[in-house]
Amino acid sequence: MSNLRILGVDPGSRYTGWGLIDQEGSRLKWIASGRIEAYRAGELPARLKMLFQGLSDVAQSHQPAEAALEQVFVSVNAQSTLTLGQARGAAMVALTMADLPVAEYSASQVKSAVVGQGKASKTQVMSMVQIILNLQGKKLTEDEADALAVAICHANSRQFMDRPELRGMR
Amino acid sequence: MSNLRILGVDPGSRYTGWGLIDQEGSRLKWIASGRIEAYRAGELPARLKMLFQGLSDVAQSHQPAEAALEQVFVSVNAQSTLTLGQARGAAMVALTMADLPVAEYSASQVKSAVVGQGKASKTQVMSMVQIILNLQGKKLTEDEADALAVAICHANSRQFMDRPELRGMR
Repeated sequence: MSNLRILGVDPGSRYTGWGLIDQEGSRLKWIASGRIEAYRAGELPARLKMLFQGLSDVAQSHQPAEAALEQVFVSVNAQSTLTLGQARGAAMVALTMADLPVAEYSASQVKSAVVGQGKASKTQVMSMVQIILNLQGKKLTEDEADALAVAICHANSRQFMDRPELRGMR
Repeated sequence: MSNLRILGVDPGSRYTGWGLIDQEGSRLKWIASGRIEAYRAGELPARLKMLFQGLSDVAQSHQPAEAALEQVFVSVNAQSTLTLGQARGAAMVALTMADLPVAEYSASQVKSAVVGQGKASKTQVMSMVQIILNLQGKKLTEDEADALAVAICHANSRQFMDRPELRGMR
């Protein structure tokens, strides 16, 4: 299997985590990660612009080959769902405008891939991301860890597929 | 009051209506309108890209000064709300990346501005848009008429304000 750079994204209208890993055969290597603090931009249109520009810059700087997004938790609160949907739409446009194929995974798929079980806690996800990517001692935000977890999930699901283009891809 | 070109948008993951009007004093003039048929692009990421590119092209070609969006109807169905939110996020990014201030109006504000009452039917909105913009005989899609109605609503609310920059703007 050839090397592949994957961009994982955990979008939100306040914080958007992003994380880049290289898949080199069965090895996963951390490249960069961070979070976009869109809440600083003020009202929603300005936030979405900041999110879009931030992710576009990340894609431009690091040239990933594929992207992966966590499927959104559909909240009981319709207004929260709408807000999160808007952030997710802005993120998706940034990724597709950078010509990246976008794969989507549910939260339980991500947790299973990283921790080995679909109901893992945030702390477990954080710890396993640090172990898998050899980042012990590096301080990660939760958003960053979640984004790296989605990237790891995508790398794993590619690895176990005969036809990667047929699964998880949209 | 100076002339102003307004872009109204009615976003959706299948169809996105857009409509441009010029406000010349108290007169409103139709400039262009249409709809982006994003459902043709296939899956959601490709749809959102088409929506973003389509609105970016409209903004580039017609150089509006301000934009107005209808606030989304929050559905009982959370998945529909999420999908609509994603389309709206993509639209909002296209408008803000074109450096347009984005105002938002509820459906009842739009109907009141165009028909004179907040519970008007789609047919009433369509007819009044055609009368106000002198488009009798021109065939409009519902999405196009809704987008023009939002633009008219924005023009009206600007006209009746002492400080247009303080109301409805985000």
